[in-house]
Amino acid sequence: MHAEVLPVTGAWRPGDPVADRRFFRFATDRPFVLDGGGQLRDVTIAYETWGQLDDSRSNAILICHAWTGDAHAAGAVAPGQPTPGWWEGMIGPGLPIDTDRYFVVCTNVLGGCQGSTGPASPHPDDGRPYGSRFPVVTIRDMVRAQARLSDHLGIDTWASVIGGSMGGMQVLEWAITYPQRVRSIAPIATCAYATAQQIAWGAIGRRAIRLDPKWRGGDYYDAADGDGPWEGLAIARMLAQVTFRSDNVFSEKFGRELAKNDPHPEHGLDLWQRFEVESYLDYHGDKLVQRFDTNSYIIIGKAMDLHDVGRGRNGVEAAMSRVKVPTLTIGIWSDILYPSYQQKEIRELLVSNGTPCEYVEIDSPHGHDAFLLSKDQVGAALGPFLDDVVKTTR
Amino acid sequence: MHAEVLPVTGAWRPGDPVADRRFFRFATDRPFVLDGGGQLRDVTIAYETWGQLDDSRSNAILICHAWTGDAHAAGAVAPGQPTPGWWEGMIGPGLPIDTDRYFVVCTNVLGGCQGSTGPASPHPDDGRPYGSRFPVVTIRDMVRAQARLSDHLGIDTWASVIGGSMGGMQVLEWAITYPQRVRSIAPIATCAYATAQQIAWGAIGRRAIRLDPKWRGGDYYDAADGDGPWEGLAIARMLAQVTFRSDNVFSEKFGRELAKNDPHPEHGLDLWQRFEVESYLDYHGDKLVQRFDTNSYIIIGKAMDLHDVGRGRNGVEAAMSRVKVPTLTIGIWSDILYPSYQQKEIRELLVSNGTPCEYVEIDSPHGHDAFLLSKDQVGAALGPFLDDVVKTTR
Repeated sequence: MHAEVLPVTGAWRPGDPVADRRFFRFATDRPFVLDGGGQLRDVTIAYETWGQLDDSRSNAILICHAWTGDAHAAGAVAPGQPTPGWWEGMIGPGLPIDTDRYFVVCTNVLGGCQGSTGPASPHPDDGRPYGSRFPVVTIRDMVRAQARLSDHLGIDTWASVIGGSMGGMQVLEWAITYPQRVRSIAPIATCAYATAQQIAWGAIGRRAIRLDPKWRGGDYYDAADGDGPWEGLAIARMLAQVTFRSDNVFSEKFGRELAKNDPHPEHGLDLWQRFEVESYLDYHGDKLVQRFDTNSYIIIGKAMDLHDVGRGRNGVEAAMSRVKVPTLTIGIWSDILYPSYQQKEIRELLVSNGTPCEYVEIDSPHGHDAFLLSKDQVGAALGPFLDDVVKTTR
Repeated sequence: MHAEVLPVTGAWRPGDPVADRRFFRFATDRPFVLDGGGQLRDVTIAYETWGQLDDSRSNAILICHAWTGDAHAAGAVAPGQPTPGWWEGMIGPGLPIDTDRYFVVCTNVLGGCQGSTGPASPHPDDGRPYGSRFPVVTIRDMVRAQARLSDHLGIDTWASVIGGSMGGMQVLEWAITYPQRVRSIAPIATCAYATAQQIAWGAIGRRAIRLDPKWRGGDYYDAADGDGPWEGLAIARMLAQVTFRSDNVFSEKFGRELAKNDPHPEHGLDLWQRFEVESYLDYHGDKLVQRFDTNSYIIIGKAMDLHDVGRGRNGVEAAMSRVKVPTLTIGIWSDILYPSYQQKEIRELLVSNGTPCEYVEIDSPHGHDAFLLSKDQVGAALGPFLDDVVKTTR
């Protein structure tokens, strides 16, 4: 195994520089066999790091991102990084995940489109994008790819593995697949298995993408006009965006205002006159299209639907009984997508096996996205948790 | 004004008989000017009745249907009526809405596709379907069309106006627009104004329909292949269906089961292998397509988004202060689409003006659809309420 800088795939044109993004490549000699039966060769995992690995290699923390996240968890806008890190303010010197003390790593997940191998990457056979040829990947595959990177970096054991939403699914799979390689975990606003309602939201988004004629069965990369399934992806994202937020905040923020930037009819009502909330959703749908690959959205969404720590392990309880390390799980009372009962269930499953698990509830009306928005509260729980872990497990 | 049997429009072929469905036609001489600025001529309202109007014409109850409902609130399967009444078990001899005592009327709303004038109806100018020419209608227009029918039937005052979801919006508009024409109202699982989140769900469904190339801007009726925007409508319906139910019931009913009727892969995971909940949503989406017109879905959905009893009336409080009659409002604790705080708000608005209003909460995990599913509880509240109304207001 060796690390090298590869051409960036997906949303980036080959050759475009991306500040601080590093690349690890594996499965160059033998294929990486996937949980779902497929396989991949020449797999690239993009990642970023912050801080310094100490001599005992014991101060490493892995951060896992959510659906449309990437390796840029922290840091400023930079070439190829059009936005600040998605957890900016959480990771840095003197911050809750303190880079003066920890060596912090964040990877782009397998199947993604921000540097790691995904459907938009060139297939090793012909150099053309995988498209519909890309295999199903699961959260476990994402985690096993991260484990290969850990080997490469010389990190036997993570001081902590931390993530929200789909990131939290990876956190749980880390502790179950590699119980000896984590000293603590923090699964946030996540679940031990996707519920029927969570699958339902994802399935509707997938069907909207399939309806888009420009999706072309997943092989849209070579479209002569450079066009793609942007409308289908935007609709899928709009739907997700409603589930990421909350009724009360939508009411407070938008109420029944008409879209500010639309022409208002002089009199009368128009079928396509938008309300402000529609304008907001259209904006978020169209914004994702600028930075995200539609097939990655489908592949990663399916990985979340397939998430079930109990699959092939004699059920959820048996799987969770493998977790033996101190755990902090965080919920948000207003989260309608990953309701707080799911994090309380994680705690119950662990505590019933004698594993220490603390549950902290974020007091925020912002819904699921509060794990990204209410960083003060998340940090106030995470910081002391990490302090304790270092004291008790080092 | 006169009643006559017209060719049925929309989902029914002209000439098909529909058991018990009656038709009222108005605006044959002067156009019906709409709330949104448009107008309609030769308007047909389809309706059904049960029981007998008494000599004093004081025992009439109006039932108002929801988004995809119709005039067939009660009754068996019959020619042209492929399903039993949508509130079967609530309306009939000895039932909570007792047809031995009351004369019960239910209309198909203006804009609908089950006999009343809607986008699939022939335009009087050319006999071709309205399609994209159909004007915006509001809940107030639906109610004013019902008032024309009331005039025709000789009903000056309804003993009660009752409805759930969009039906409840009509109920409130009845009491506000025609305070002298109702003696009581029962708005169920509804709201005084659509919230941003409710608008959001509707807007996403509309955008999915627009994405369907077979929608053709709304003018799909003459498509040479007889094809239409069924896929877009199905997706919109799937989304609505999730909001009509609840997380807990989805988990209980479907969990993480794979679709029973799909072939299961021998081994491995397949991107398009459905979970049972997906199969259920696909089924409900495709089922609606069999019986409902896509443009009606859009027009009625927009009417709900535009619902705001305060519009043009100096706000919600001023509008609600016009309601002076005994009110029963019913909520469902598990309703995520019309959360129970909205019905409690209706009560607060009325009680603060000295209007008697009772709030009853349905104890059901089924979500919004409990107003259709938990008829025992709805009936247990409605029956005594109607008894009291008759005693105190007759």
